[in-house]
Amino acid sequence: MIYFDNSATTRCSDGAMKIMQECLQENFGNPSSLHSMGAKGKDYLKEAREIISGVLKVQPKEIYFTSGGTESNNLAIKGGVEAKKRRGNHIITTKIEHASVLNPIKYLEKQGFEITYLGTDEYGVIDLEELKSALREDTIFVSIMMVNNEIGALQPVAEAGKLIKAFNKEIIFHVDAIQAFGKFKILPKKMDIDILTVSGHKIHGPKGSGFIYINEALYNIMVPQILGGGHERGMRSGTENVPAIAALGVAVKEAYDNLDSNRQHMYAMRHRLIEGLSAIDGVTINGHVDENSAPQIVSASIKGNRTRAQVILNALQDNYGVFVSAGSACSSNKPAISETLKSIGLEKDLLERTIRFSFCPENTMEEVEATIKAMEELVPLMVL
Amino acid sequence: MIYFDNSATTRCSDGAMKIMQECLQENFGNPSSLHSMGAKGKDYLKEAREIISGVLKVQPKEIYFTSGGTESNNLAIKGGVEAKKRRGNHIITTKIEHASVLNPIKYLEKQGFEITYLGTDEYGVIDLEELKSALREDTIFVSIMMVNNEIGALQPVAEAGKLIKAFNKEIIFHVDAIQAFGKFKILPKKMDIDILTVSGHKIHGPKGSGFIYINEALYNIMVPQILGGGHERGMRSGTENVPAIAALGVAVKEAYDNLDSNRQHMYAMRHRLIEGLSAIDGVTINGHVDENSAPQIVSASIKGNRTRAQVILNALQDNYGVFVSAGSACSSNKPAISETLKSIGLEKDLLERTIRFSFCPENTMEEVEATIKAMEELVPLMVL
Repeated sequence: MIYFDNSATTRCSDGAMKIMQECLQENFGNPSSLHSMGAKGKDYLKEAREIISGVLKVQPKEIYFTSGGTESNNLAIKGGVEAKKRRGNHIITTKIEHASVLNPIKYLEKQGFEITYLGTDEYGVIDLEELKSALREDTIFVSIMMVNNEIGALQPVAEAGKLIKAFNKEIIFHVDAIQAFGKFKILPKKMDIDILTVSGHKIHGPKGSGFIYINEALYNIMVPQILGGGHERGMRSGTENVPAIAALGVAVKEAYDNLDSNRQHMYAMRHRLIEGLSAIDGVTINGHVDENSAPQIVSASIKGNRTRAQVILNALQDNYGVFVSAGSACSSNKPAISETLKSIGLEKDLLERTIRFSFCPENTMEEVEATIKAMEELVPLMVL
Repeated sequence: MIYFDNSATTRCSDGAMKIMQECLQENFGNPSSLHSMGAKGKDYLKEAREIISGVLKVQPKEIYFTSGGTESNNLAIKGGVEAKKRRGNHIITTKIEHASVLNPIKYLEKQGFEITYLGTDEYGVIDLEELKSALREDTIFVSIMMVNNEIGALQPVAEAGKLIKAFNKEIIFHVDAIQAFGKFKILPKKMDIDILTVSGHKIHGPKGSGFIYINEALYNIMVPQILGGGHERGMRSGTENVPAIAALGVAVKEAYDNLDSNRQHMYAMRHRLIEGLSAIDGVTINGHVDENSAPQIVSASIKGNRTRAQVILNALQDNYGVFVSAGSACSSNKPAISETLKSIGLEKDLLERTIRFSFCPENTMEEVEATIKAMEELVPLMVL
C-alpha cells in the first residue's frame, strides 16, 4: 500500500501508541482523583503541555487540550468573537478556510456579525493589500489558515499578523495551523498570532487529540464552549483525555525533533511528483510548485472525459494500491464543490477532476516513483 | 492495588484496547476518505452505532458520538434549550446534578432563562410531587441524572418522564446516564427520555469517548454546538474518533452481555462493604443501603478530628493500596463542598469527612474484605 492521504489522517506512530496504551490500561487514573493514580495522570498532562509549549515557545498554561482541530476552531472563533463583541461587529476570514472555520463563522454571520471573505490569487494565496483595506474600526477578529488543506497554499500569516496588530492591537488574530503544524516552525509570539489551533491525527498522533494556544492576555475574556468541572483552567471541561494528550505530546516531539529533515524529504518527494505528473498530457498542478507551498500536498487536475476524481482514485487504489483523496476528505462525504479550487480560478470542468496526494515523512521516493508510473499508465487511458 | 475509584474512571478493557490499536495503526483511514481505508473506518462507526442502538432499542441514527460525557451534556442542554427557546423560558433540573449539567444550565440562567432546582430527600432522591408542581406552561427542558455520582442515588426517571410528558409532550426530557449506563437497562423510548448522555471511560471504554442519544423527532431542531464538516449528520462535526468509537462499542457490548450478573456481583460487594463499614464506630453510610441505590457506589462519612477525606484517602492508599475518592473526582481538583451531600442534609462537620468507594465488575469480594479490614484498623486511630 502506498498511503498518500496523510492530510486526511495519518497512522498513529508507535511511540504515540505505546504511551496511549500505558495511559489506558496501566496508569489510567483520572487526573482529578486525589490519589497517586490521579497524580500520575496529571504528570502526563504536564509533560505533553511542556513539549508543545516548548515547540511554540509559549507558556505551558497557554496550551489547552481539546478533542481535535474542529473543536479547537470552534472554541477559537465562537469563544474569541464573543470575547470581543462589545468592541465591534466585523470579522475577516478567507474564502478558502476549512469547513471547521467557515461554518462557525457562517453561524456568527447569521447571528448578525458582518464578515469579509478575502479572495486569493491563482496560487491560493491571499493578498495582504486586500487584508489591509478590509480592516475596519469595528473589526474584532481575523481568521486565516496557515496551510490550505486542498492545495497546500502557504499564507503569509506573520506578515498578516504584523499588519493586523499595526492597525489595532485589540483585534484577535486566529491561525488555523492544522495542516501547518509539524511541518513548519511556528512561533505565535513572534508572528503576532493570538490563537493557534492544531489537530493531533494529522501528525501521527491519535484521532480525538488536539490543542489550542490562547495568548494569556485573552484568558480572562475568552468564552469557553464546553462547560463543567473546570478542567483546563476552565477553558475546556471534561475529564482530560490523558491517553490521547500524552500520545499527542509524543507525536509533537517526534515531528519537531526532525522537523527540517522531514520537511526537506517531503519537499523532495513533492518536487519529484510534480515533475513526473507535469510531464503527463492533460495533468496540471494547482498552487505553487516550489517552496512557496507546503511540502506535503500535491493537488493535480486531469483533463478528460473519464477523469472524475472518484474514478482516478478507484483506479489508483484497485490497480496500484495507491491511496489518494478526492477533495479534502474532511467534509464527511459531502461532495461539495471546493471553494479553494474555485478561488484559484480553476476551470469549471476541472473542479471535479482534481485529486490530492499528501505525504508524511515516512513516505519514500520509491513510492513517489511508483505513483508517477501508475499515473503515466492510467491517465492516457482515462483522457481518451 | 485495590482500585475502588471506578466512578472517576476505569481501566480500558483488553477488548476495547485491541480494537483501538487496530484503528490507530492498521485500519486508520478517515471515514470521509473515498477509498477503501475510509470505507473500513466507516464500518467501525456503523458497528459501534448498531451495538449501542441495539442496547437502548433505538434507531442507529439516533446515536451521535462525542468526545465524552461533558461534551454530550453540553450539547444536550445548550442544543436542546436553544431548540425550544421560542416555546418558553423555564428549565427544571436538580440540585445534585454533575458540574457538566449544572454549569451549562447556570450559563443559560445568566442568559435569562429561569431555572427550578429540585431538592432531594435524605437519600438523595427527588420528589415526584415537587417535580409535578414545578412544571409550568413555559417549561421547555427538564434535566435529571439517573444515578448520582457521589452517593449512587437512583432517580425515578421513568416516572419523571411519564409525568413530564403527561403535562406537555413538547418539553424535552434529558437524562444524564453517565453513572447509570452499563449498570442498568435503559430504554429511552419506554422511559419517555428524549435525550440520553453517556461517557465511555466510566464503563471500561477509552477516555475521550461518549455518545448522545437524541430522539429523531428533535433532529431538525437541535442546535449543534461543534460546527464544521457536517459529521454525525451535522450534529457533531470533526473527523470521527474511529478508534475511540470502535472501542466504546466493544466496551458497551462487554457491559451489556453480562449486565445482570455484573450488577448482582456489584450489589453483593456493596452490601458487604456497607455491612462492614457500618459496624465501625463513627462511620455512617450516605444514601439508600439497599437496591434503591446504584450497585457501584458506596459513600461513607467518618466522624472524628483526623478524618478529613484526604487523610483517609492517603492512609488507605499508602498503607493498604486501596484507591478511593474524596468527593466526585470530576471537578478538576477544586475542593468545593458537595451539593449532593448538602442536599441529603449531611451534618456540616461530615461534608469534608466523606469518601467514595466505587466498584467495577472486575473487583472481587476479597478486595472488599481487605478494605473492610483496612478501615477497621484505620478508623479507630483517626477517630481518636
